Amino acid sequence: MSGNAGWSATVLTLYPEMFPGPLGHALAGRALADGLWTCTARNIRDAATDKHRTVDDTPAGGGPGMVLRADVVARALDAVSDGAPRIALTPRGAPLTQDRIRSLAQGPGVTLICGRFEGFDERLFEARDIEQISIGDFILSGGETAALVLLDACVRLLPGVMGAASSGVDESFESGLLEHPHYTRPALWEGLEIPEVLRSGDHAKIAAWRLARSEEDTRSRRPDLWQRHSDAADQSPSGARQQKKDV
Amino acid sequence: MSGNAGWSATVLTLYPEMFPGPLGHALAGRALADGLWTCTARNIRDAATDKHRTVDDTPAGGGPGMVLRADVVARALDAVSDGAPRIALTPRGAPLTQDRIRSLAQGPGVTLICGRFEGFDERLFEARDIEQISIGDFILSGGETAALVLLDACVRLLPGVMGAASSGVDESFESGLLEHPHYTRPALWEGLEIPEVLRSGDHAKIAAWRLARSEEDTRSRRPDLWQRHSDAADQSPSGARQQKKDV
Repeated sequence: MSGNAGWSATVLTLYPEMFPGPLGHALAGRALADGLWTCTARNIRDAATDKHRTVDDTPAGGGPGMVLRADVVARALDAVSDGAPRIALTPRGAPLTQDRIRSLAQGPGVTLICGRFEGFDERLFEARDIEQISIGDFILSGGETAALVLLDACVRLLPGVMGAASSGVDESFESGLLEHPHYTRPALWEGLEIPEVLRSGDHAKIAAWRLARSEEDTRSRRPDLWQRHSDAADQSPSGARQQKKDV
Repeated sequence: MSGNAGWSATVLTLYPEMFPGPLGHALAGRALADGLWTCTARNIRDAATDKHRTVDDTPAGGGPGMVLRADVVARALDAVSDGAPRIALTPRGAPLTQDRIRSLAQGPGVTLICGRFEGFDERLFEARDIEQISIGDFILSGGETAALVLLDACVRLLPGVMGAASSGVDESFESGLLEHPHYTRPALWEGLEIPEVLRSGDHAKIAAWRLARSEEDTRSRRPDLWQRHSDAADQSPSGARQQKKDV
């Protein structure tokens, strides 16, 4: 553990009581208790200036729902001055990737802005330097559960969080492939055996079997990932079998 | 609200204290209090049979980390007999889509199985009918935050959860496009104005502007979505501008 104060997460939300929430337990919770990261939730409503503490208003041009006001969210954001990357969770954002997680985990922390209702007034993104990220092609009631996902993914990569017995490499996506399937005891269960090669003790054969299964499962389950993996391999002098081990 | 007991979520996890967590607040929390859905978390460890309540063991064939035992998880799953679809959250799964969310929300509920460590013994999926779903191409410390995301996405679509003032349609992905940007008061903020068309009161022009911005933003930000949208339009007799309004 380094001498600094740890990786710092600040979350701007209308529901600060949701944080750290599930991240106060298990791996992330132990890391939080150990001071490896901090989690500060700030209520966007505290940046409102009227007596009703208004944060939203009706959409210009009509339509259902409410829109988060740019001026209020910007004021909440401007009050955070820690120099960490600023990310808004929104379905209009770029898809979250393990590469982005890795670079965030290597930085000082992150400031997350959680949308609610119909989303943010677009001028927020014209007036402030904010990355827009989406965790997937589905609609949430707000950015909060997406923020928890992003933080969980970052925190497990922080130095000291995963013990030596756990692993940060050879996982799905770290190599651009789905991870191979796993097996453990009992050796025989409901008539199903652990594949024989995994019981052979032949490490080279085991590694080859695992890579073949990774490739086979990626090709059949995720043709999109397989295509990207193949394209990357074509452009790499060391070929498709190069594995990233940089975490 | 119908006369039944509501949509039923059962979560198998090593950390039942994480549920309902953030879903006990805001929109999902009010729906939970109103009985529109139920959330039951069961500890997988309760299905262990030895005195140490063991749920995991080392990977067959070697390697770091621990693997969740198929026999223990299957025993936990077999104790749930509510007929709801069974889904394991795993990075080896199929990507979660808004279509899948919509069909789950229309069903009786869902049983979610949250992985931890290196994942599940693969024989679990050979011996039981379990759908494998991934919320995105990144690695979490466990399936719990992914489960919260999936449940949040489903619950907002349940009858009675969103008020008449909110909207379940015209969102990103419901039409296969990113949603158009939003604006609200103030009309002028930091020198930036709300686009004039949105202040025109001309509903046809506003609808055309919004569709054009949806298409433009999807094309530039998400060429993958745009490609799928274009392919679907080519196969549809009513063309690219057909909007789904089925929720």
